[in-house]
Formats: sequence, structure tokens, C-alpha cells
Amino acid sequence: MDPRQVPLVLRYADMFQIGARNMQNFDLLKEVGQTHKPVLLKRGMSATVKDLLMSAEYILAEGNPNVVFCERGIRSFEDSTRNMLDLSAVPNVKGQSHLPIIVDPSHATGRPDLIPAMARAAVAAGADGVHIEVHSCPETALSDGPQALLPEQYAALTEDLRRLAALMGKTF
Amino acid sequence: MDPRQVPLVLRYADMFQIGARNMQNFDLLKEVGQTHKPVLLKRGMSATVKDLLMSAEYILAEGNPNVVFCERGIRSFEDSTRNMLDLSAVPNVKGQSHLPIIVDPSHATGRPDLIPAMARAAVAAGADGVHIEVHSCPETALSDGPQALLPEQYAALTEDLRRLAALMGKTF
Amino acid sequence: MDPRQVPLVLRYADMFQIGARNMQNFDLLKEVGQTHKPVLLKRGMSATVKDLLMSAEYILAEGNPNVVFCERGIRSFEDSTRNMLDLSAVPNVKGQSHLPIIVDPSHATGRPDLIPAMARAAVAAGADGVHIEVHSCPETALSDGPQALLPEQYAALTEDLRRLAALMGKTF
Amino acid sequence: MDPRQVPLVLRYADMFQIGARNMQNFDLLKEVGQTHKPVLLKRGMSATVKDLLMSAEYILAEGNPNVVFCERGIRSFEDSTRNMLDLSAVPNVKGQSHLPIIVDPSHATGRPDLIPAMARAAVAAGADGVHIEVHSCPETALSDGPQALLPEQYAALTEDLRRLAALMGKTF
Repeated sequence: MDPRQVPLVLRYADMFQIGARNMQNFDLLKEVGQTHKPVLLKRGMSATVKDLLMSAEYILAEGNPNVVFCERGIRSFEDSTRNMLDLSAVPNVKGQSHLPIIVDPSHATGRPDLIPAMARAAVAAGADGVHIEVHSCPETALSDGPQALLPEQYAALTEDLRRLAALMGKTF
Repeated sequence: MDPRQVPLVLRYADMFQIGARNMQNFDLLKEVGQTHKPVLLKRGMSATVKDLLMSAEYILAEGNPNVVFCERGIRSFEDSTRNMLDLSAVPNVKGQSHLPIIVDPSHATGRPDLIPAMARAAVAAGADGVHIEVHSCPETALSDGPQALLPEQYAALTEDLRRLAALMGKTF
Repeated sequence: MDPRQVPLVLRYADMFQIGARNMQNFDLLKEVGQTHKPVLLKRGMSATVKDLLMSAEYILAEGNPNVVFCERGIRSFEDSTRNMLDLSAVPNVKGQSHLPIIVDPSHATGRPDLIPAMARAAVAAGADGVHIEVHSCPETALSDGPQALLPEQYAALTEDLRRLAALMGKTF
Repeated sequence: MDPRQVPLVLRYADMFQIGARNMQNFDLLKEVGQTHKPVLLKRGMSATVKDLLMSAEYILAEGNPNVVFCERGIRSFEDSTRNMLDLSAVPNVKGQSHLPIIVDPSHATGRPDLIPAMARAAVAAGADGVHIEVHSCPETALSDGPQALLPEQYAALTEDLRRLAALMGKTF
């Protein structure tokens, strides 16, 4: 996203999403900071937890307090998953910030066989939400098909997550 | 550990532990493979999941089927934790091997404030056990004191883990 | 830099510099691609060589052929240098692209004691230039003082580089 | 190598080679430390420069002063080369130790198209030697064929290195 597109997105969307590649696009952060619309700030592929918290400050400092963090995996030498999901970022962020954090196991792993376990782990780690991609026919998806869950896999997972959330004292 | 120490350890210990720095010490792997004592094989700091599975083959090929994997964190650029705990290794290993895998959040994070959340996440990810360090007086511990939980923290955590394990269809 | 600042920079500067944090700011890449001013495209902190080459395509596809790559270090677990200088990127890029590539040992290492050796190595690896920071009084520099060479260190280094460049069949 | 093999190697070889996977096999380090034969100590795949220096201490402390370091690449997210060659390790080690250090661009890159440039860069960075694999018929090599230079490539490279070494005040 480009800072010039902020007014357009502001008019139609419920939330801004700052992608991993834009986490340190400071002009964009300041621009969405001047609105009051919620901002989903995804962690950069080589950003430390401190870098992520510092990026949020650019939004907060402009007056927009509605920031939600998203852990979506970092780069590592492991080549059997798309990225390396860092779930320790969840309690790490929570110990330093009052802002909510969600986890995206779909982009982090890129593998449907790992997504349910990682979604459950995210909730058990204290995440405030999970971002999961679902498609009724992944082969024909316009993007990210290979990492999509099927609707029935998703339905089973939500049952697991509902029970886990209850155990964590959260509603789902 | 040195291959020459295997007979001594065999006599007194209940389990061999192959540390992260020895995960690819192939002579040692073959030596413990010639016993029937259980072996805890810790993942090397820069080992892929495939490397870990391949190391187990050196033990199995000698005739010892009693191998337990241990995820204890890999090296990354994140400098606020000792290592980067890779919980995706749990379902990743389970999809490729019948062998059990446990998780060590104490060594992985090095931070007591993160250990309970990561232990819960490990169980929710499907781990068969967790390795947690506890000390009644961490300041006087001979080693790894700063990452030890206090007994009361540990007791509270085990209650959480018991409930999570039940939810995962496991006993504790 | 923000795409909206492109006209202003275009008027006064001799070259656009796309910093590491903006290497995948695709709107900005397209905007400078619509000018004919040279663009210094710095490698992102977790960008592969392929990612770097792909980012240049966004500029080239808009009609601006004047792209110069800059290797300035990637993130790794090594904590005694600011970043990990990847000199293999020099022949790696040259084998896949006709575009020039320079090396920035100042940002990559962050350590004046390592900069001269890495500048020499960059030229020997085939780099088309080096970016080195110099300050007559590093303690009072407004930014990046600790990584600046003193003028006399720089003068000695340029003598070395002149001889190396001649050996590589290049002028300096 | 296994500590039990030290007497045998001692009898026939001119130098011990401690491979990357054994850099922190402390029993083996101590065992070769009790001889006076030179030891080539290769950097582990996820070892920091400090880790490497500390491993040498295990050898030196036993009384063997003849240690030579070898930089052969570390693990990173870059997937177009086998490992990430860290040439900054050369001046970094030299600033902290009197011991020599050589560079192995063959194992580090795994790519013959990158080896000559990296060998030149190693000498320009101050390395005391380079380790290069050559084979007259790489297709039939028993190991590491794909990373071997042909004899004529090697001959041309040595000419380059001879001139570079002279420039660095070294003999070849």
C-alpha cells in the first residue's frame, strides 16, 4: 500500500493492513496514524520484536491508538516451511505492550498440514486471534491456494480453538 | 558426551541425552544406537527438521528404536530470546515420523516470563512432553539459574498443562 | 522515502537511494521507474539475491534502466557485527544481471576495524564500487558516527583499493 | 572424527581437521589438544565468531598451540548458495587472535561460478589461505563433485591469487 491510497482505503475498508514488506515504511505508518481506523501491523520478515513495537510507535504517535500486531513468521534457514513462525513473540509482545496480537499460521508455515497445530498453539500462547485462509477449491484460488484449509478442516479447527479459548479464559 | 562414556552412562542413567552440539556427532549416535536405552536427541542450533530426522537414523540403524526428539530452539537474528523456539517442528516431525517429540521452552527462550506460555503452546501443538527447569533459589543454581521457574510457578503451570493435555486427548 | 517525495528528489538529487527497508515498497519502485534518474537499490535485510533482482524489475519495467544494486548486509545470528555482509551476492548478481553492484561495508559491519578489509574484499569479488562513510570527528556525527572512518584511514584505504582495482582490470 | 580415532590419525596425517559439525565436540577438541599436530578448526554452521574462538581455547588449554581457523560459511535464509560465506570473520578473528585463518569458498558457496571471486575476496580480506576443491572430472567425483573447479579454472585462479597475495604483502 502507498500513503496516497490511504484516503481510498479509509473510505471503504474496516481495517488497514500493513504487510510485512511495509512494516518499516514510516511514511505509510504515519499516514494511517492520522486516521482512527484500526491498523493490522504485520511483523517484517527480519524484524525483531523490538523493531515491531517501534514501528507501532509511528502510528500511535500520530494519534491512532487502534493497532493490532500480527506474527506471520520470520526468515530462517529452515526450508521445509515458508517462514519460521515465532510464537514466543506473543508473550514477548504482551509483556511489553497493552496492544493485541494475532497470529497468521497460514502465511507462516505455507502448509495446510501444519496450520491446525500452529493455530491451536497460538491460542495456547495467548494470542488474541488467528488469521487462517480457507478456500472451497484451493486449486483455483487466485492467490495462496496451496496454504488454504478446506471448509471442513476449518470447521473442525474452530471447534478445537473454541475449547482452547475457553480454557484460556477467552471467548470465541 | 564422548562415545567412550557410553558404557558408564549406560550403567547408571535412565536415558541418554544427546545435546544440541552433538546432534551430528555421528560416532556418538552410532554408539548409543548399539544399546537399548532410550535416547533424547536434541535438535542442533542450525539443524533443519530433515537434519534432525536424519540424525535419528544413525541411532535406529544400529538397532535402538527408543529415540525421543527434543525441540529446544534454533539460532536466529532475534536477540531478545536465547534461541528461536520452532514449534512448527512438532507437527512437522509428527507428519514424517512415528517417534515422540518433546519441547524445551527453558533453553529455547532463556526467559521465565515466556516459558509458561511456550509450554502451553507446545502441548497444544501436539508435543508429547515438555522439559522445564525449576529451582527453589535460581540465584544460587549451579547452571541455567536465570531461566528456572520457581516451584510455585511450576505448580501453576502444571495445572494449565494438565487441562490442555486432557483437551488434546492425552494424559499427564 | 515516500512516492510523493519523488518529484522533489528528482529536481535536486543526482540519484535516488532506495533504502533496505523500502526494497519491496513496490509503489515507490514504480514511481522512480517512471523517471530516468539513476536508482541505488539497497538489498533488504532479509532479501535473497533473487528478491533483490525481482525488485529491480519493478523499476526497469517502468522504463528506467539506470539501476545500481547495493549489498549492505543481511540479518543473521552473528551478534558481533551489525549485519552479515554477503559478498557472494556480488558474483551471484553479476551472473544473472548486467546491472552494476556496489558494496557498503560501513552499514554491513558497523565496525571501522573491519571496514578496510571488507572494502578490499568487495573490490576483489568484482564489485563496481564501495560506499564508505568518513567523518573528521565521528563523535560529533549526526548519524552513524561509530561506523565512520577517519580521513587518514580513508586515504590509506583508497590507495589499497586503487591497486586492487587495477589488478581487477578496473579504473578507480 | 571420534576421540578414539585421534591416535590413528596422529600416526599418519599431517593435520587434524575438525569439521563444522564437531566444532563444539569438546572431548574431541581436548583430545587433539593433547597432541602437537596442527589442527584445522572449521567454524560451525551456526557458530558466532566468539564461539569459534572459544572452541580453540579447548585445544590451546591442553597445550597444543597449532590451531588454524577455517571459515566455511554459516546457515542463513539465502537459498541460492549452500551456505553464507562470512568474510568479515577474517578481520574479526584477526583482531582478537594471533592464530591464522583460512577460507573455504568451495563448501561455503557450493557453486563453481562463485568460487573464484570468493577466493580472491578471501585473500583481499586478509585470509592466510584458501581451501579449494579441484577435480579433473567432477561428474565422477566420490563426493562434492558439483562444487569442484576444473584444473584449468584452478590454474587461472592461482595466478589471480598470486598477484593478490603479493599486493597484500604475502607470499604464495
